[in-house]
Amino acid sequence: MSLGRLEAFSDGVFAIAITLLVLEIPVPSVEPGGLTDALLDQWPVYAAYVVSFAIIGIIWINHHAVFGYVERVDRGLLFLNLNLLLWVALIPWPTSLLAEYMQSGGSDERAAALVYALTMTLMGVSFGGLWLYVAHRPGVGAVARLQPLEVRSRTRRFVIGAPLYALSVGLALVSAPACLAVNALLAVYYALPGGGAMKHLGDTRS
Amino acid sequence: MSLGRLEAFSDGVFAIAITLLVLEIPVPSVEPGGLTDALLDQWPVYAAYVVSFAIIGIIWINHHAVFGYVERVDRGLLFLNLNLLLWVALIPWPTSLLAEYMQSGGSDERAAALVYALTMTLMGVSFGGLWLYVAHRPGVGAVARLQPLEVRSRTRRFVIGAPLYALSVGLALVSAPACLAVNALLAVYYALPGGGAMKHLGDTRS
Amino acid sequence: MSLGRLEAFSDGVFAIAITLLVLEIPVPSVEPGGLTDALLDQWPVYAAYVVSFAIIGIIWINHHAVFGYVERVDRGLLFLNLNLLLWVALIPWPTSLLAEYMQSGGSDERAAALVYALTMTLMGVSFGGLWLYVAHRPGVGAVARLQPLEVRSRTRRFVIGAPLYALSVGLALVSAPACLAVNALLAVYYALPGGGAMKHLGDTRS
Amino acid sequence: MSLGRLEAFSDGVFAIAITLLVLEIPVPSVEPGGLTDALLDQWPVYAAYVVSFAIIGIIWINHHAVFGYVERVDRGLLFLNLNLLLWVALIPWPTSLLAEYMQSGGSDERAAALVYALTMTLMGVSFGGLWLYVAHRPGVGAVARLQPLEVRSRTRRFVIGAPLYALSVGLALVSAPACLAVNALLAVYYALPGGGAMKHLGDTRS
Repeated sequence: MSLGRLEAFSDGVFAIAITLLVLEIPVPSVEPGGLTDALLDQWPVYAAYVVSFAIIGIIWINHHAVFGYVERVDRGLLFLNLNLLLWVALIPWPTSLLAEYMQSGGSDERAAALVYALTMTLMGVSFGGLWLYVAHRPGVGAVARLQPLEVRSRTRRFVIGAPLYALSVGLALVSAPACLAVNALLAVYYALPGGGAMKHLGDTRS
Repeated sequence: MSLGRLEAFSDGVFAIAITLLVLEIPVPSVEPGGLTDALLDQWPVYAAYVVSFAIIGIIWINHHAVFGYVERVDRGLLFLNLNLLLWVALIPWPTSLLAEYMQSGGSDERAAALVYALTMTLMGVSFGGLWLYVAHRPGVGAVARLQPLEVRSRTRRFVIGAPLYALSVGLALVSAPACLAVNALLAVYYALPGGGAMKHLGDTRS
Repeated sequence: MSLGRLEAFSDGVFAIAITLLVLEIPVPSVEPGGLTDALLDQWPVYAAYVVSFAIIGIIWINHHAVFGYVERVDRGLLFLNLNLLLWVALIPWPTSLLAEYMQSGGSDERAAALVYALTMTLMGVSFGGLWLYVAHRPGVGAVARLQPLEVRSRTRRFVIGAPLYALSVGLALVSAPACLAVNALLAVYYALPGGGAMKHLGDTRS
Repeated sequence: MSLGRLEAFSDGVFAIAITLLVLEIPVPSVEPGGLTDALLDQWPVYAAYVVSFAIIGIIWINHHAVFGYVERVDRGLLFLNLNLLLWVALIPWPTSLLAEYMQSGGSDERAAALVYALTMTLMGVSFGGLWLYVAHRPGVGAVARLQPLEVRSRTRRFVIGAPLYALSVGLALVSAPACLAVNALLAVYYALPGGGAMKHLGDTRS
């Protein structure tokens, strides 16, 4: 019951953050006849929308996988989860920032990419922390239902995100599109099978 | 349980996207005495609001009908559903674009209508793909509960949307209001009985 | 199950519409030292926020009361409910319009109040229609659980809203604040006991 | 069932309000090369985002704790809860106001901090009222499940918020950052163990 309300609240934040992304796509104000060009020119907006949508969607899937092992909600879990949601709910802002400045070049473009990559890194760190807490805190996670090998495989998968996202922070200083591309690849990585994140989802309705 | 959380997340995205449409209706800034005319002049905004509201509402109803046959959530279903939600969540943007440029005439009006119709087409393709996956992927859909004739009837209904929406893409190049009207007619078509989409909804509370 | 998902979707739209109202409250841009005055000057914004919040909250309570008698969801109910949600989701817009123009005087103020009162009237008509459908459509409502007297009492209560809201349309042509005040009084009327709208809510947790 | 829908609606408002906070973070419009400075300059925006996020998150946790003792939903509870949600849903506005004016100095800064602290105070008063109603209204709260000592400990905890928030109103007249810091400390206070607010959350899944 408690757990159900926590999951429902988290799902709500995920669903709202993913849907608010659309508000960051501007309707261009143009001279007559200029709309087609203006729409094509703002391609970074669409790229950022798709990448951020995929990232939030996949965090949601993995969040679900982690909570599939939770047996008991304690104060620590509550705040680690709230901390994760803080970064997830923030994502529409760096998305908009990156979309706005991706073609501007120079230090502005790098600053925007840096903020984007930093947000994702902190989100990744928060996610890894949440998983480690569930996996190792006595009484919180249903570790008895997991083989030690499975725990380690999931830990590898969920904790490796943080350094990979951090790598994209460095890349941001070189090229904003490359930084966005690495974030897209990370989303693909987490979408691929492995680590059994999806296994829990294979349960039948009953 | 897993299925319940997937449905709840999807319902959240539908509910938010349908409610965000209102943010696209501007409060006009006018010279004293000009509000009545300004409100009447922006009739395309209201038309686009109603049509997009109806479209999202009816996708939601049909989404429900499709998920009524899901017995097991796998990775493929998860991503096909996320792909559908990406297009649903996008709808407020082309709605706003079309509303803004519908009376502007020329290439701008056609570009805006094209983007609107393309979004609906990709949403229709995504929906058709989701249904085909549920209907034909072994273990995912409860096909045993459906007569082959019923499967074919639903397939006709859910897959025919994509080419009909695509037709409205062509129409967008001729007339933006006609394009919006065709999208409205498609919403009416999916609202009418047929294909049993609604049948599942007739279940009693128990 | 079906009914549960319909209620959850409706609750989502109510919760989002009521929370989006806050976006209509502007952060004033002022000359240094002018913020206090600017904040006091926009009192109609706060009044409109509170009245619209109360109206949406109370429609939600009454929506709950109506759905407490639903036994079976059919196509008609689905569309009457979607129609009600269309007007509920619209409310942030006339709220913002009225707040913006309430102190402007003249025809602009009357036009804004007219749009506000018309939206509430159409919402009231939609609500009355939904109740009449639940109460009289065979198989949809649990009329057997209600005394004929109770049905009539609820009908009086839920159907009287439309003409009362319509009255506020007339008033809008005279005075915008009076029109808002009448809408506030209507919210108070629906909040008061009577007609047993609340009775259903008295159920224990089990 | 009734209680479930009330909790779900409240959770929806909490989740939306907490996620809408991100819309208050502006994407700066700058001269080429000025983005880094502009992003650093708007630090009050980030501070206000984090503090308001924490406050809404912790009210949500405490709301959950209060509703864990509700056995029966009556009209009074419904309206006290709606009143609390009105203040919670408002929070993004004073957050944005404070973020905008925190560095402006003078009377504007104090006015913004005053509005922020007043909103939190009224939220605190509303929360205290809700708890007192649940604890003392016969039939509403499950007081039989609580020791008198526990009731008193929770009452101390939930009712003390209002005067502490009120204290921050006075502080707003002196220093806006100090006022925000006190609100952050109050969030920390409610996050710490004590009064058993969290105890209810310790239930196992079953």
